[in-house]
Amino acid sequence: MKKIPDNAKKMFQGEAFEIWQWEQVLFDGTKKTFEVAVRPDCSTVIAVVGDKIVVQEQEQPHLSSPYFSLPGGNFEDGDDPISCAKRELEEETGLTSDTWEEWFTVPLGFRVLCDNYFFIAKNCAGNEIQKLDGGEKITNKLLSFDEFLDLRNNPAFLNIDLVRHLERAASNSEERNKLKTLLGIN
Amino acid sequence: MKKIPDNAKKMFQGEAFEIWQWEQVLFDGTKKTFEVAVRPDCSTVIAVVGDKIVVQEQEQPHLSSPYFSLPGGNFEDGDDPISCAKRELEEETGLTSDTWEEWFTVPLGFRVLCDNYFFIAKNCAGNEIQKLDGGEKITNKLLSFDEFLDLRNNPAFLNIDLVRHLERAASNSEERNKLKTLLGIN
Repeated sequence: MKKIPDNAKKMFQGEAFEIWQWEQVLFDGTKKTFEVAVRPDCSTVIAVVGDKIVVQEQEQPHLSSPYFSLPGGNFEDGDDPISCAKRELEEETGLTSDTWEEWFTVPLGFRVLCDNYFFIAKNCAGNEIQKLDGGEKITNKLLSFDEFLDLRNNPAFLNIDLVRHLERAASNSEERNKLKTLLGIN
Repeated sequence: MKKIPDNAKKMFQGEAFEIWQWEQVLFDGTKKTFEVAVRPDCSTVIAVVGDKIVVQEQEQPHLSSPYFSLPGGNFEDGDDPISCAKRELEEETGLTSDTWEEWFTVPLGFRVLCDNYFFIAKNCAGNEIQKLDGGEKITNKLLSFDEFLDLRNNPAFLNIDLVRHLERAASNSEERNKLKTLLGIN
């Protein structure tokens, strides 16, 4: 198990979270119980349709206001990053792509352990029929490149790991063109 | 408890994490167990000494390589954001400031619930004597403004919430001057 010592014990197995603890020898020789939470790794997709980017307005049954995010979700049994990305894109948007590129990966931290894999799916096409479960209510929107960059200033946009890239692209024309090329947008 | 329904039950109380679950009615009328992790809120300090900014090289007893972060830590009993910020700054750096400003607050998300309060402490001074516990090994470094901005490209710098502000300040001279003014640096 990544980043967790061999002597760690699973203290709790929840629906999504596991809690692991171990006895850690500190720098001064004393001992302390260390604890981390582990949750499933996930994949996130920047899906390009023509010259537009798919952004989702999502509602959750327990939250009063919607938030904005990108297609994606947690690994299921047997998933690797790309299989998860392809499945979640198709389930949530009905879109597929034959041009996938891995962009970057974000390890969430040393207290909550999970990795988030970011993919670019160019030239997406499909029937746009969603296969959602009863807990999902997702409206897919196609944003222009400029609208996509504007998400960095939207407090309801949850993908904080992407925001740094949007800030960079919004900063000057060279960075802007770099991101457009990466996404295959003219 | 914020963002958690009244019928939620605490399923696990750990050293730092709590796991809460509740039966959630979904959009289609079916039910599912929803789960969140709650951890202590925390404060983070951008501490300015003269025209330099304090950045920490931290080691953890269970990690093989150091990482870079800012002074700060978790709320303790009775803490509010500013009391936590002042205590952590003094414990970790020996510095105090009489000019505190709240900068921004980041709610971590809807699966791991905790808020991170960012403060600016201008004109810091002190004896630079740390009061660390046995699990802390912290080397404080004073970075120039440009070195501070360069942290955005350092994968060992963990404060992802700050990186967007560094990206923005690095993007052009107007944004750069805005951040310098905010930090009280000429």
